[in-house]
Amino acid sequence: MRIALDAMGGDHGPGPNVAGALKALAAAPDLTVVLVGDKGQLDPLLADAPAGRVEVFHCTESVGMQDKPTEAFRKKPDNSIARCWQLVATKAVDGLVSAGNTGAVVAGGLFTRRFLKGVRKPGIAAVMPTAKGRCVILDVGANVFPKPAHLLQYGVMGAVLARHMLGVEQPKIGLINVGEEQGKGHDLVQQTYDLFRNGPLKDRFVGNVEGRDIHKGAADVIVTDGFVGNVVLKHAEGVFDFIMHMVGQDVIGVLSAERDLAVQAARAMVGKLHYSAFGGASLLGVDGVCVICHGSSDERAIASALGVAAQDVRVRLNDRIVEELAALPAMGDGEE
Amino acid sequence: MRIALDAMGGDHGPGPNVAGALKALAAAPDLTVVLVGDKGQLDPLLADAPAGRVEVFHCTESVGMQDKPTEAFRKKPDNSIARCWQLVATKAVDGLVSAGNTGAVVAGGLFTRRFLKGVRKPGIAAVMPTAKGRCVILDVGANVFPKPAHLLQYGVMGAVLARHMLGVEQPKIGLINVGEEQGKGHDLVQQTYDLFRNGPLKDRFVGNVEGRDIHKGAADVIVTDGFVGNVVLKHAEGVFDFIMHMVGQDVIGVLSAERDLAVQAARAMVGKLHYSAFGGASLLGVDGVCVICHGSSDERAIASALGVAAQDVRVRLNDRIVEELAALPAMGDGEE
Repeated sequence: MRIALDAMGGDHGPGPNVAGALKALAAAPDLTVVLVGDKGQLDPLLADAPAGRVEVFHCTESVGMQDKPTEAFRKKPDNSIARCWQLVATKAVDGLVSAGNTGAVVAGGLFTRRFLKGVRKPGIAAVMPTAKGRCVILDVGANVFPKPAHLLQYGVMGAVLARHMLGVEQPKIGLINVGEEQGKGHDLVQQTYDLFRNGPLKDRFVGNVEGRDIHKGAADVIVTDGFVGNVVLKHAEGVFDFIMHMVGQDVIGVLSAERDLAVQAARAMVGKLHYSAFGGASLLGVDGVCVICHGSSDERAIASALGVAAQDVRVRLNDRIVEELAALPAMGDGEE
Repeated sequence: MRIALDAMGGDHGPGPNVAGALKALAAAPDLTVVLVGDKGQLDPLLADAPAGRVEVFHCTESVGMQDKPTEAFRKKPDNSIARCWQLVATKAVDGLVSAGNTGAVVAGGLFTRRFLKGVRKPGIAAVMPTAKGRCVILDVGANVFPKPAHLLQYGVMGAVLARHMLGVEQPKIGLINVGEEQGKGHDLVQQTYDLFRNGPLKDRFVGNVEGRDIHKGAADVIVTDGFVGNVVLKHAEGVFDFIMHMVGQDVIGVLSAERDLAVQAARAMVGKLHYSAFGGASLLGVDGVCVICHGSSDERAIASALGVAAQDVRVRLNDRIVEELAALPAMGDGEE
């Protein structure tokens, strides 16, 4: 299987991308990585690459983290993100991984216009830790003003991901809202609630989930609009960093004899719960696997994302999404 | 000064409310608390009350935590929340505190139709801990589908609260968004960004704030719609509980000789950062002080909320809000 990696993406340039690719190759014997980026910068980093399993697809431009996506695509046609998507669209690769400008990665996917059959709007699914294991949250940024029917489809796609990637046999779906009771929140969530409650997913739907219950593991699939999902995903990261800083200062800081032991244990815990352990977020709904990484991704995060992309391909995640969507009764076809 | 306390509010009935009132009275010699609720249940709890500083305003009904606010007000006219608001409206008290049904407390405030001069829509402001101290976040639930002009006013009201209640001389205002750059997010945040950036608050406005930067202390006043604010406030609580659970298990759990020391330190840290230390959230924009507590509030949280309400009165928070709003140039008077 072949995965394209946006070698120019992320805050730290090609270094962690190439290192992450080599790490992923060591872990997955069936994987070939196509590094998309500037050959002059990439070749010197590839001295230790396993023969025949890394290719470089040369391109001359890259999208900056602050660039506006549509503008970047117009002004820099030979950018690494666009080239990754072209490789996906022509089936030269099975999927792509990028730690670059998220908006540009999503825009690239939308520009291909090759949505999976039945999909109205792609969404980004991230995985977060909970007290019961892990949950999928989507959308975390592709669609900041969705329609209820989009959110229903996110429930379907998220459940496929939870089943095939997290091993949850019967995923429960929850809707982020400001209260548990039906009738809470604005029109979007009220209408979405009704679609879930009265539709084909009613047996999987656990109802509204409040902010405080997400990490209790109230649902395996947390559905929300891309604005709220993006805020929640980043907020989890921010609260985590803040609390661990306070734990270091107020708790570990008062220890003496066992301080080193506590520091080691805290590091291991951070490693387990940190976003880099969760393999990046999957853009679901586009024909071709796409895993989007945090801009600050290190080697471990890139390797983990490549692993997720490879696994998405192995379990034929997209075929399963198409099957599940096809099994839904047609709904509201009048609206986009 | 006189504060009405919804003695029937919260998940645990009159017990923690009365205990919290007695605790608050001990801390504030200028305070009188009017307990609003069922006299038969309240009188037996008042054996130790300081003479002349606790009054009971009897009422026969209460709003359940699951009740729909408007329905509750129609079907239970003698409920404790409505009675608290009537005491505020008739100036029999200076403010109210309630741990009851938040929707009903807000609805009660809106029903009075006594908004502060210039206020378009009241909002709820909560205080959260950050790496730099504390920040105000609003709205956290009164207005789930606001207009840009409402959010601008929340910036003004939040800054008044930060200055007079948190002691921040020159509060910085940030807008929750999915990216830092101008032009990110949906219409509401884009238009709100422009109002802040080009309007009278431009010198205080630090721009968009992402979920991960809130607890870094990126701004003293975090402005957002009531849906996102509610999710963020509760999510902070949920992540905090989850992380502290994991710290207990993975970090403190591996210690032996210094385990008790670490447990004590962790408890102290939780006490410092827990929502009960932050005194409840203030409904800003209504003529009369109103502090809304968490449903699960204990004695400490109620006492702390009464302390906040009393301080709101002392610093004449509402007068200052009116002054600041009056100083803004008139904007977009055509829209509601």
